[in-house]
Amino acid sequence: MDMQQLAQRAKAAAIHLAAAGTDTKNRALEEIARALKARSADILAANTRDMERSEQQRLSAPLLKRLRFDDAKITEACLGLQSLIRLPDPVGMTLSALELDQGLELYKVTCPIGVIGVIFESRPDALVQISSLCLKSGNAVLLKGGSEAAETNRILTDVIAEAGDRAGLPNGWLALVETREDVTGMLALDRLIDLIVPRGSNAFVQHIMNHTNIPVLGHADGICHVFVDRDAEPEMAARIAVDSKCQYVAVCNAAETLLVHEDIAEIFLPRVHQALVAKGVEIRGCNRTAAVIDCRPATPEDWATEHLDLTLSVRIVDSLEAAIDHINTYGSGHTDVIVSGDPDRGVRFMNHVDSADVFYNCSSRFSDGFRFGLGAEVGISTNKIHARGPVGMEGLMIYQWRLMGDGHIVADYSGQTPRPFTHRKLDKPFPA
Amino acid sequence: MDMQQLAQRAKAAAIHLAAAGTDTKNRALEEIARALKARSADILAANTRDMERSEQQRLSAPLLKRLRFDDAKITEACLGLQSLIRLPDPVGMTLSALELDQGLELYKVTCPIGVIGVIFESRPDALVQISSLCLKSGNAVLLKGGSEAAETNRILTDVIAEAGDRAGLPNGWLALVETREDVTGMLALDRLIDLIVPRGSNAFVQHIMNHTNIPVLGHADGICHVFVDRDAEPEMAARIAVDSKCQYVAVCNAAETLLVHEDIAEIFLPRVHQALVAKGVEIRGCNRTAAVIDCRPATPEDWATEHLDLTLSVRIVDSLEAAIDHINTYGSGHTDVIVSGDPDRGVRFMNHVDSADVFYNCSSRFSDGFRFGLGAEVGISTNKIHARGPVGMEGLMIYQWRLMGDGHIVADYSGQTPRPFTHRKLDKPFPA
Repeated sequence: MDMQQLAQRAKAAAIHLAAAGTDTKNRALEEIARALKARSADILAANTRDMERSEQQRLSAPLLKRLRFDDAKITEACLGLQSLIRLPDPVGMTLSALELDQGLELYKVTCPIGVIGVIFESRPDALVQISSLCLKSGNAVLLKGGSEAAETNRILTDVIAEAGDRAGLPNGWLALVETREDVTGMLALDRLIDLIVPRGSNAFVQHIMNHTNIPVLGHADGICHVFVDRDAEPEMAARIAVDSKCQYVAVCNAAETLLVHEDIAEIFLPRVHQALVAKGVEIRGCNRTAAVIDCRPATPEDWATEHLDLTLSVRIVDSLEAAIDHINTYGSGHTDVIVSGDPDRGVRFMNHVDSADVFYNCSSRFSDGFRFGLGAEVGISTNKIHARGPVGMEGLMIYQWRLMGDGHIVADYSGQTPRPFTHRKLDKPFPA
Repeated sequence: MDMQQLAQRAKAAAIHLAAAGTDTKNRALEEIARALKARSADILAANTRDMERSEQQRLSAPLLKRLRFDDAKITEACLGLQSLIRLPDPVGMTLSALELDQGLELYKVTCPIGVIGVIFESRPDALVQISSLCLKSGNAVLLKGGSEAAETNRILTDVIAEAGDRAGLPNGWLALVETREDVTGMLALDRLIDLIVPRGSNAFVQHIMNHTNIPVLGHADGICHVFVDRDAEPEMAARIAVDSKCQYVAVCNAAETLLVHEDIAEIFLPRVHQALVAKGVEIRGCNRTAAVIDCRPATPEDWATEHLDLTLSVRIVDSLEAAIDHINTYGSGHTDVIVSGDPDRGVRFMNHVDSADVFYNCSSRFSDGFRFGLGAEVGISTNKIHARGPVGMEGLMIYQWRLMGDGHIVADYSGQTPRPFTHRKLDKPFPA
């Protein structure tokens, strides 16, 4: 089947999956866990072939590590499935209920978005997570994985689809595509696919955003800041700065720029400098920073650069307002941190920094779906609409307005003597 | 100022408007109401010039009616402002609170989207409504109105902006643009404008959607259906069909296609035929319909056509499932109605029809922000993400994740002996 046919089949399946009961979906999740264990030898063999081929192709060690899918990963995936089974069904929840008039009741009820296209990196465990999140939330899903994981992804998709069949899920709710042409095809199908979730490099996500009319949920840049305010506790500020920069440098929620209030710069900078240098961090400082600590001079491009490496841009600012301006100008709306002794200044920072995640006295690295208690994460969004920051199952939901009447027509509520609406809040769920 | 400068100024203003207190915003709404009354003579004079020019240009009577902005409209606008003042401030509401660990608390707090671009039709009262909705929700707004209303829009914008200045709103939160080139300019500013709301014809909205990377909230087609099920009460079904089609034909929530279950067709069709013909409706029926009532033959294009006129496509279907399929194939995801004597079949219809609004035993014409109790309406959305159906102030909001710590770093929650997260629900609002 080509991309268009897969998407058509997925759209048809989505209608039925949206109406599937909680029991059916949970049974399918159980079946998937069972099948992953039952087929583990085949899965591990496929993964070994992917690993061997990738080693021959000199894939880097961190990427090889992400590619590995072994018994421990299968156990972890099954634990994830069990915790998903325990979560309440997000479909069919009544968000509001309003009597418009006697016998005319309006309900706002959650429902799946429809067909989700997910383009993900080489981790095969992401395939299990994403497809099970889509299943529980009632969404059909078209997956495009990394070519390094081709064999692992293929067998995982087969195992999951077959388990779904046995549980009575509509055929075609899950499909795997493999080529770049398939991705191009996906982006053109705005009448069949409702949302694209691209995970990957900045340039890749930007490319997706620029080449489709389908809404895209994700983030390109992750230029995160730590601002050390004038009355910050220097020891705490240094720990947070080091953790935000160094705990895992290659990820979107790592800090790229350290902003320091001028009143604390002479005390704080030497201290953090020592800690950063000990971790192997190269500092690119503004002129004022260079007068306090030893560093390479920062260029204006540094403020707008996601280093994703052991490099940190450092700038001294005059005030809280100057820090906020810097972040709103050069940041990417992802995660920004203030370290301050004054909670009121923390709140001022949060009220004025236009980012998905704003943190007070803690590391930028907490910005993550698991740490946020969302369970698995679909991705992190820097969008300004729908879902922002770490996105769990909630980001795969939308709602439908359901109006229950008894022959009501609008003509009675118009003209010379219109019937008034009661608009009375109801405290009851949609009568399903 | 050109479009880029206006948008830059709006973005800067949006940061401050997002942090403006409820009192400041309500004071501004009061000032606007006061100023509309104080400047009413000037406003009416400007509107008279617009009306006279438009009459000379032979604008149609319904458009002239929409263009008129008289004393009654000013009074109505002021009532709208008063009711907006009474509404709770949608900014800063805590949607959830979670303890991640001792002293590390995560809050999901509502905030404005940022800068909204609204392109609206000739009604000057829409300008007052939209700008006041944006103000209360803390969003900056760039408006493009119809050229017929140029003078009225200009003075209304001045009056509102000046009133905002007096109340202490940030300069530039509101701006009016006037040319088509400005709209083109708007669509290119995806780094400054966060959401476009286009109101107008199908072709116009489609054009907007195809020419911007900015998220668009709205609807192109409004192909709404009424399905009369086998056990519908024929008298009720006829009333609902006539109201859905005829109560106001030129609007997006008017019915375009009537689907009739085959078991009821011979009883129902002659009855509704008579009522529709009495209203001057032309019926385009499928072959089976033509065997029961006098009508023009329907072509396949009719199923996908938004007539927006006294024309109704009619088709006999074999089953509830066939009706659902027809709607999901030809509909536009706007508003679809089932008339049935069986609520279970109503719920089945709602569970399977993938539309923003699904109604049971009432007219499609109820699909409207005022009737839904949302207060004023920004527009009606057939999007699958963010906001669906009639969109009130809630559709102009998003949220921000706020994490309050006390020196917490991620290194402590990683490695060989990671600290566990508590992920304990908190029952308290963000401490602002």
